[in-house]
Amino acid sequence: MILTVTLNTALDITYRVRSLRPHTSHRVSEVAERPGGKGVNVARVLAALGHEVTVTGFAGGPTGAVLRKALAGVPGPVDALVPISAATRRTIAVVDELTGDTTQLNEPGPHITPGEWGAFLDRYEELLGGASAVALCGSLPPGVPVGAYANLVRTARSAGVPVLLDTSGEPLRRGVAARPDLIKPNADELAELTGSHEPLRATQDARRRGAHAVVASLGANGLLAVTPEGRWHAAPPAPELGNPTGAGDSAVAGLLSGLLDQLPWPDRLARAVALSAATVRSPTAGDFDLAAYEKLLTRVSVAAA
Amino acid sequence: MILTVTLNTALDITYRVRSLRPHTSHRVSEVAERPGGKGVNVARVLAALGHEVTVTGFAGGPTGAVLRKALAGVPGPVDALVPISAATRRTIAVVDELTGDTTQLNEPGPHITPGEWGAFLDRYEELLGGASAVALCGSLPPGVPVGAYANLVRTARSAGVPVLLDTSGEPLRRGVAARPDLIKPNADELAELTGSHEPLRATQDARRRGAHAVVASLGANGLLAVTPEGRWHAAPPAPELGNPTGAGDSAVAGLLSGLLDQLPWPDRLARAVALSAATVRSPTAGDFDLAAYEKLLTRVSVAAA
Repeated sequence: MILTVTLNTALDITYRVRSLRPHTSHRVSEVAERPGGKGVNVARVLAALGHEVTVTGFAGGPTGAVLRKALAGVPGPVDALVPISAATRRTIAVVDELTGDTTQLNEPGPHITPGEWGAFLDRYEELLGGASAVALCGSLPPGVPVGAYANLVRTARSAGVPVLLDTSGEPLRRGVAARPDLIKPNADELAELTGSHEPLRATQDARRRGAHAVVASLGANGLLAVTPEGRWHAAPPAPELGNPTGAGDSAVAGLLSGLLDQLPWPDRLARAVALSAATVRSPTAGDFDLAAYEKLLTRVSVAAA
Repeated sequence: MILTVTLNTALDITYRVRSLRPHTSHRVSEVAERPGGKGVNVARVLAALGHEVTVTGFAGGPTGAVLRKALAGVPGPVDALVPISAATRRTIAVVDELTGDTTQLNEPGPHITPGEWGAFLDRYEELLGGASAVALCGSLPPGVPVGAYANLVRTARSAGVPVLLDTSGEPLRRGVAARPDLIKPNADELAELTGSHEPLRATQDARRRGAHAVVASLGANGLLAVTPEGRWHAAPPAPELGNPTGAGDSAVAGLLSGLLDQLPWPDRLARAVALSAATVRSPTAGDFDLAAYEKLLTRVSVAAA
């Protein structure tokens, strides 16, 4: 089983409006809701690829109940979320039908009490017992210590479970120092971590800070990997037009899936790039187009960097 | 007891953001939720004025449960909402902290089944038995027949309960023909009903179409009343700066409150205008400032029109 951790889960709501004009009133023509937060998105892609996957993190309040009900309703990730008294946050994506652009409104996360954090740590350790890999994904809600990911990385390493960390800012800085097996920063996160805007230099620097391997996302230009086995640049056949929401989460799922299938690095990177591009191409934010994925897989270029 | 009917109740959510810029991502700094829909707002103001008030209409799904829990949590309106299987809609008001302006996103209403509509009609008739006045407020959700308000007006008249209708479009046109005691259209609703943009002419025409009395809202210029007892124009001492959300609902509450207290028309109109202005002045959308209300009450001018 692959375990994904989403401490700041969300109920992702998508609204379609004809044209978003600030300071006016809009009729929403269509409402869609689904479980969200980076680790939940990663888990959904892993399940679609045929992996057994369990999600943990927090869920609470009426929005948390809706999220858990939706998770239970479809075959896919197993729900091992820890209940909290505050309400899971909502995110609202307002899609403008005229331009196709999206405006995002993200609620603040719920406050996590020390008791809830303690309950999560117990659950996490217990779940690691059955995990073949773990992904720690996204931001920390209020109340969770800033060193949380460093703690979770160390626990995974003690349990002998490969650990991927995908976060930003101070939680990433501290988490990297705890020596995760893999981090997957984007260009901004990497620059914030290392102070360098030069991708190869920054990626190498991130390894020196503690990450065993670093796969940097270069947006439409694919992935740059610096690992003990070598350095590669993997790129899609052409930049994809579409909605990049969830493309990074699909890349994480591809990397984990390739790790579990014991693929060599170039094939793992090809899988991650193809999944990411197929997610951009999909009409539904965060979903991937399976036919596009299979076609792209053979067309990703992977070269030594 | 005063009965207010809100067929299209809503969970009203307010987000504060620093500055709303389409096609970018925003952190919401503050989230507020409260029960909404015109009749619910009217009931809240009536309760604050010391009246016994009951709300009916529909509520369902997780949003309906949140709405009902919030109604139960405060002293005020009695909850006589009829359960439905679809979910109560949300409205989102995004307040821009830089400009103070609000952008509104309104979800479509839930679909009401014929059985649910029938259950409502039974409940409505039963509630009318204990009502000294009834207000029918707002839009109709999908599934409710367009002649719904005409039906509800006739039932109230048969029961001898004074009935106020506050809606728009075809439901208003049909409702007026059923001869309600009072309607409270704004300038746009009145023009749509009568084809005239001249307030006095349009208000008189609306009476000819069947309304016993018509109180037209002139926005910042107050109210114009055409009744069997006379015609009046009631105006606040000065136009109010602030958020007009809920000002019309406060006017409806003032008119009902004055009716129940058997005030002469000029005093009813003064109460409605003062409540409306005190709502615009309040920092919280839809709430009214009690001290401002009491001060304004003595300063509203009422003249024969």
